[in-house]
Amino acid sequence: MLIVQKFGGSSVADAERIKNVARRVAAAKRAGNSVAVVLSAQGGTTDELIAKALEITPNPSKRELDMLLATGEQQSAALLSMALAAEGVPAASLNAQQAGIMSTSKHGNAHIKRIDTERAETELDRGNVVVVTGFQGVNRCGDITTLGRGGSDTSAVALAAALGADLCEIYTDVDGVYTADPRVVASARKLGVIGADEMLELASLGAKVLHNRSVELAKKYRVNLVVRSSLSDAPGTLVKEETGLESLIVSGVAVDKDIARISLVGLANQPGVAFKLFSLLARARISVDVILQSIGRESTKDITFTVAKDDADETLKIIADNAVTLGYRQVSHDDGVAKLSVVGAGMATNPGVAAEMFEAIYNAGVNINMISTSEIRISVLIDAADADRAQIAVHDRFFPPAG
Amino acid sequence: MLIVQKFGGSSVADAERIKNVARRVAAAKRAGNSVAVVLSAQGGTTDELIAKALEITPNPSKRELDMLLATGEQQSAALLSMALAAEGVPAASLNAQQAGIMSTSKHGNAHIKRIDTERAETELDRGNVVVVTGFQGVNRCGDITTLGRGGSDTSAVALAAALGADLCEIYTDVDGVYTADPRVVASARKLGVIGADEMLELASLGAKVLHNRSVELAKKYRVNLVVRSSLSDAPGTLVKEETGLESLIVSGVAVDKDIARISLVGLANQPGVAFKLFSLLARARISVDVILQSIGRESTKDITFTVAKDDADETLKIIADNAVTLGYRQVSHDDGVAKLSVVGAGMATNPGVAAEMFEAIYNAGVNINMISTSEIRISVLIDAADADRAQIAVHDRFFPPAG
Repeated sequence: MLIVQKFGGSSVADAERIKNVARRVAAAKRAGNSVAVVLSAQGGTTDELIAKALEITPNPSKRELDMLLATGEQQSAALLSMALAAEGVPAASLNAQQAGIMSTSKHGNAHIKRIDTERAETELDRGNVVVVTGFQGVNRCGDITTLGRGGSDTSAVALAAALGADLCEIYTDVDGVYTADPRVVASARKLGVIGADEMLELASLGAKVLHNRSVELAKKYRVNLVVRSSLSDAPGTLVKEETGLESLIVSGVAVDKDIARISLVGLANQPGVAFKLFSLLARARISVDVILQSIGRESTKDITFTVAKDDADETLKIIADNAVTLGYRQVSHDDGVAKLSVVGAGMATNPGVAAEMFEAIYNAGVNINMISTSEIRISVLIDAADADRAQIAVHDRFFPPAG
Repeated sequence: MLIVQKFGGSSVADAERIKNVARRVAAAKRAGNSVAVVLSAQGGTTDELIAKALEITPNPSKRELDMLLATGEQQSAALLSMALAAEGVPAASLNAQQAGIMSTSKHGNAHIKRIDTERAETELDRGNVVVVTGFQGVNRCGDITTLGRGGSDTSAVALAAALGADLCEIYTDVDGVYTADPRVVASARKLGVIGADEMLELASLGAKVLHNRSVELAKKYRVNLVVRSSLSDAPGTLVKEETGLESLIVSGVAVDKDIARISLVGLANQPGVAFKLFSLLARARISVDVILQSIGRESTKDITFTVAKDDADETLKIIADNAVTLGYRQVSHDDGVAKLSVVGAGMATNPGVAAEMFEAIYNAGVNINMISTSEIRISVLIDAADADRAQIAVHDRFFPPAG
């Protein structure tokens, strides 16, 4: 079997942990598999390198920042290869250039275009484990790029797709995908399997197990993806394109607190106002989520929507800069909000889910501010202070605690 | 003018020093020159990386060690490019792969075979400063190599040769080549110019200003090489292939204390013994220096020679392992020796130099153990404890202190 294993920064943070990873990789290799490993930089390295750059200038060139940051994964890949050799397993580290990871040119947020696997396959054919630097690529000028958040997961899935791997294992500090955040909901259960679409919804809703770019890629190229713990031998959660008839009505409950609510009050009640607003934000690459448009009094209307907390300042600036075009009376914003979502592929054919969710939230004494739905997801906006309580109430409704 | 400037690890050890280097490079660029910079890793980085590797295994693979160490120069090159951009000078860092520095395959001690300068020239044509990682290359498999000691000087001279640069400036923490070590000899003078052959002798004799591989390369490709201080604007020393008629009889005095003397006593007085010994050492890549062979009593003879201190243990082991073949009675070795040399292109046509040197040493009350000469060099082996005193005496003889 050809397996791609991905380990994150905390799994390789020091020499001891690197040796642990080496033992795990060696075990997979000794079991008769071909193994390609994708690594992040050692935990903390990337932040240290960014700090070094900021000592030089507050606005480092993105090309040079990528050149600098890419050294982090090259170091961890070399160190793991040494550890594998010390375990008696021959290994070769490959940086993005050597591994042929061709990307788009956008420094800091490049996308993988294709992977020329010739060198990696040569090493695998020789019986070597290949250790590939995650998070980075090379653009058509030969410049080093980085892939942005969740980049190493994406590298692993893309490599698995390019090599035609039988399995892509994402090792992380949790042992799988849970029905809710186990730190908040004591009765949360680990899922044995989840559909790629549901995983996508959960990922974009704040369940930080996998980055959604990697799930999208796995879905597109039908890569068998497993989320496992690097600290235990527990079986983890398999992400499959189709989970078949056994789809749970609800697969999980997710909470996202990294959002801000912004309201424009007293807009002219005429067509095109919402279009103007959201095209301005789209041009600035700001993603808008839950949107509520209400008919206001006196021939005006209000628009309320959410954005990522990091985008709130820029959003408010764009609104202020375009005050005349947009023609609103007043802007308000609120950081103390949370989005609570339930996700489930079975939901589409089970119309009662929304009602059950709202009832559970009502019984918990929590007020719902806004509602948004998709085929397999229902989200509500609530006060952040109520988020944990509401999450437990909703989870217990769909996954009644045992006993 | 096209200038290659090389800065060592101490010149880029922290953010402040990197900014200083950026100002110096920017000044050369603003003066209308095209500038390519070759950088070492930040001072201390290489040692830290080696320590990380040794935490993993006492015998790291040399391929992986090169992969690890090469990140040091990539970091300093990226940081300097950021600092140049902050100075208003556009710059692009290039690692060995991007700069086309093709090397032999021997990891840890590779040699540059050629440089494909296309990318560097494109950047220079665009008006960018190119900042190239020193000390590293890429072999024909696309693997990263390192060049061994003095590697960054060699990278700079090779790049200057490949680009057809008008000048290659080696910035260091001394401001030029001196007639003796100024820390020992107070009256040592800075040379304005020195012949490449003399520089080669001085370099290999322990004057650690330039590595001799870089001087050899400069001589071969007729690169104008200047040694300058990164801390001042003093003009430095020009290393030229020919210094013309004005050659000094003696250009400098050098002392090397990093040597050990080894004696084999009571060898059979028959042909081939010296050949056997030195071919064994040559096979182990151990360089032997000053050699003295004496006819011993009772049909035996003794051989005494010097090796680098680092090679002494291995040399003694080889001698012990081949005791039967070599057939000696006794081995002795001595770490407390020093080699004192005078170098000068004018020496060949001035036969009195040796006598003057020996007289100065005699007057200083220092005993000479062994003597070795070349066309432009005379070396004597003395006790290490006498080295400073003898160096001052010899220097003052050829360069009488003013007043």
